[in-house]
Amino acid sequence: MNDIGLIGLGVMGENLALNIGRNNYSLSVLNRTIEKTKMFMEQKVRDENIMPFYDIKSFVESLERPRKIILMVKSGEPVDNLIHELLPYLENGDLIIDGGNSYFKDTDRRIEELKASNVLYLGLGISGGEYGALNGPSLMPGGLLETYKLVEDILLNIAAKVDSKPCCTYVGDDGAGHFVKMIHNGIEYGIMLGISEAYNIMRKGLMLSSKEIGDTFKKWNDGELGSYLMEISYKIMYHEDENNNRPLVDFILDKAEQKGTGKWTSITALELGIPAPSLTAAVDGRLISHFKEERIKLSNVFEKKKVNLSLDKEKTIYDLEKSLLFNQFILFSQGIWLINEASNVYNYNIDSAEVLRIWKGGCIIRAKMINFLIEIINEDRENINFLNNKKSVDFLLGKFNSTKHISNIAKDLYIPALIHNTSMDYFLGLIEENSAANLMQAQRDYFGAHTYERVDSEGIFHTEWE
Amino acid sequence: MNDIGLIGLGVMGENLALNIGRNNYSLSVLNRTIEKTKMFMEQKVRDENIMPFYDIKSFVESLERPRKIILMVKSGEPVDNLIHELLPYLENGDLIIDGGNSYFKDTDRRIEELKASNVLYLGLGISGGEYGALNGPSLMPGGLLETYKLVEDILLNIAAKVDSKPCCTYVGDDGAGHFVKMIHNGIEYGIMLGISEAYNIMRKGLMLSSKEIGDTFKKWNDGELGSYLMEISYKIMYHEDENNNRPLVDFILDKAEQKGTGKWTSITALELGIPAPSLTAAVDGRLISHFKEERIKLSNVFEKKKVNLSLDKEKTIYDLEKSLLFNQFILFSQGIWLINEASNVYNYNIDSAEVLRIWKGGCIIRAKMINFLIEIINEDRENINFLNNKKSVDFLLGKFNSTKHISNIAKDLYIPALIHNTSMDYFLGLIEENSAANLMQAQRDYFGAHTYERVDSEGIFHTEWE
Repeated sequence: MNDIGLIGLGVMGENLALNIGRNNYSLSVLNRTIEKTKMFMEQKVRDENIMPFYDIKSFVESLERPRKIILMVKSGEPVDNLIHELLPYLENGDLIIDGGNSYFKDTDRRIEELKASNVLYLGLGISGGEYGALNGPSLMPGGLLETYKLVEDILLNIAAKVDSKPCCTYVGDDGAGHFVKMIHNGIEYGIMLGISEAYNIMRKGLMLSSKEIGDTFKKWNDGELGSYLMEISYKIMYHEDENNNRPLVDFILDKAEQKGTGKWTSITALELGIPAPSLTAAVDGRLISHFKEERIKLSNVFEKKKVNLSLDKEKTIYDLEKSLLFNQFILFSQGIWLINEASNVYNYNIDSAEVLRIWKGGCIIRAKMINFLIEIINEDRENINFLNNKKSVDFLLGKFNSTKHISNIAKDLYIPALIHNTSMDYFLGLIEENSAANLMQAQRDYFGAHTYERVDSEGIFHTEWE
Repeated sequence: MNDIGLIGLGVMGENLALNIGRNNYSLSVLNRTIEKTKMFMEQKVRDENIMPFYDIKSFVESLERPRKIILMVKSGEPVDNLIHELLPYLENGDLIIDGGNSYFKDTDRRIEELKASNVLYLGLGISGGEYGALNGPSLMPGGLLETYKLVEDILLNIAAKVDSKPCCTYVGDDGAGHFVKMIHNGIEYGIMLGISEAYNIMRKGLMLSSKEIGDTFKKWNDGELGSYLMEISYKIMYHEDENNNRPLVDFILDKAEQKGTGKWTSITALELGIPAPSLTAAVDGRLISHFKEERIKLSNVFEKKKVNLSLDKEKTIYDLEKSLLFNQFILFSQGIWLINEASNVYNYNIDSAEVLRIWKGGCIIRAKMINFLIEIINEDRENINFLNNKKSVDFLLGKFNSTKHISNIAKDLYIPALIHNTSMDYFLGLIEENSAANLMQAQRDYFGAHTYERVDSEGIFHTEWE
């Protein structure tokens, strides 16, 4: 009898299977198409204790009870269908683990629905991409604590390690694991757009080659901006196209795709009533890129004067580094605020410092900055928005002028810097004691009798303005 | 027997009832609390042919068949409950009209559900606030055309008139009316935040008094920026507090509330995959304002240097006017793009030029600019995004430097200009032929094998980057 089963041999599923096998667990695998399973067994599996199965019944029967089955399939309907197919073969106390990018509300629902069948369910956020899945991802499990305990040993073993601690922790109840993974991806989108904006300014403003931009990214990666996304960015810049020995990145079509987690993050922020404009900007940036045909047409309509800025190269690169730090800090702060708010609203009971700890390794958004963020969180664990802290404000103010400079350069070049600007305005909004929202409240009261509060006395007021 | 019935005597319901009565229709009214109905009859109803009812049965029985019943109640559950209460008394072909701010998907659902009972349903977007409801609102009815025809006469009569044409048109199928009203409100949020940002710069940068800002708004209202929201803004600036004869706006608490339509607009944009960052910025601006306590605390942490900008007053006011035009244009373009996309995706079959026409009067976002927008739309009626047009780009480019100047001033003053910046970056994103999204696609392929397209050959590619 095998220790655990895994269904779905896509890129992530295959690599997670190999990771589990390498950690000396015996594993049963199953895939919808038999050929895929056979290819996997022939081409990828070496010494790992992995057994292929070609139908659900024998797959399930091959597992030690309580059975543990990891689903690595596309989120949405495929997950529900698979649960439906598995259920007839499962028994009391068996456990399904959803390792895909499921919407957290679906996970909440599935945990609830499966109670009737006495089947346990764990929503497992997995980050780390192909490489992480194989060599150690960051794992974000959510559900009942006792459900988690059934697979804790496996998860801790296959997870990435930082300072010899596994990048895996019990995140919280219900869909907490998938919620946190969703936010992780929202932050990921933002960091990616931020780096792209910096890249754009370097190539269009400083006229640097991809190789030179790679050198800059590499230098940044050795400094405060050190992160997985910066590391792969410099490697991308260095990568030559096999066909022509020129930088491959120059031949990639500039239409950014997305799979939905970023959108869910923005929608969730709106539903929770927590401002997260930078996380949304990251989604909008991708959406705008998508309209390539419109962009070409509009770019031709627009008779762009040749922009010749005489930029100080060294200062601009210095400012770009600072502005990316500014931006990255804001992105993490918006994400963590959402996690803390959701933790309260949905009773997930999440420890956001622990979340940041397991993001230190294995995952796509691992970054040196995280240590500093944990330090800030630990200064006041009741504070749900870590931007609301003197260290945070000092950190951001120290980078504000650089970010402003970058914002101005982008406008002078007629190129967008959506996420840089949004992050700045978010920060400025939160440090503004007296905002201009008094006028909006007056307008609302004027046309809709929506009432307002006053600064000088308690109560709810309405004025007959006319 | 009365021509029509109305349930829900809130501010909007009362005024709509008086409007219908004044137009010589006989009207039955009903309200959940009897006292409210009695007060309405005593205090507000004069010569209008309005009859009060105190229970659903006699209310329904008082109406000419097919009965027409307008609901003016809070959106969400109250609407479903009321439909449920009405149903036992309704007969084949009777018509319920939902005049509230219902979520368009709820309206879609209700139309579908009521088919089983042979009860017709119209989702009626109403804009114009208190004043409009009483004197002529902009009306956005959606549902079956034959359903609309049953009340067309009444709706055309009570609607606002512009150039003697009523601001009412059959918008489209299903929830099309409420969809369009939702977008109307999204644009409204944006225009309000834009004006507030201009107000903020005038008071904090130019040190103008509320009276002086009122003078500026008034001047703008006489020019290209002429609009209902500009008109009420100058009147607000002039309005003195009865208690102290000082500008009332200075005593209003700067926490902007919202009722949900703006959020729905942003969520819908994300769901449809159409970029609408300015519409979302408008929601985020309100959300940020909401955290007044955080803002006070953070503002104190931040030891703000006294900013002393020597701004050229005349030039700044000139640039503010241009930047608001820029911003308003972008807001309308994002909204109309959403309407056109929804029209395709949901088969609503909406004519966006007609929508703009009925927004010319009665509603909160009526503005002189709308004539220009209709002109652009009519140049190419297949174009779903009217920013994608030479006139649009020329209009925006002509205001770009002013908007840039305003953005810079705001940052120098340490105050947010979220919607100005977002609108600029949106524009810059759409006129950028080669964006930096190639790097994001490379990153996605690097860590997740998500593949990419190339600029120089067809197909889907994946690279082994390591």
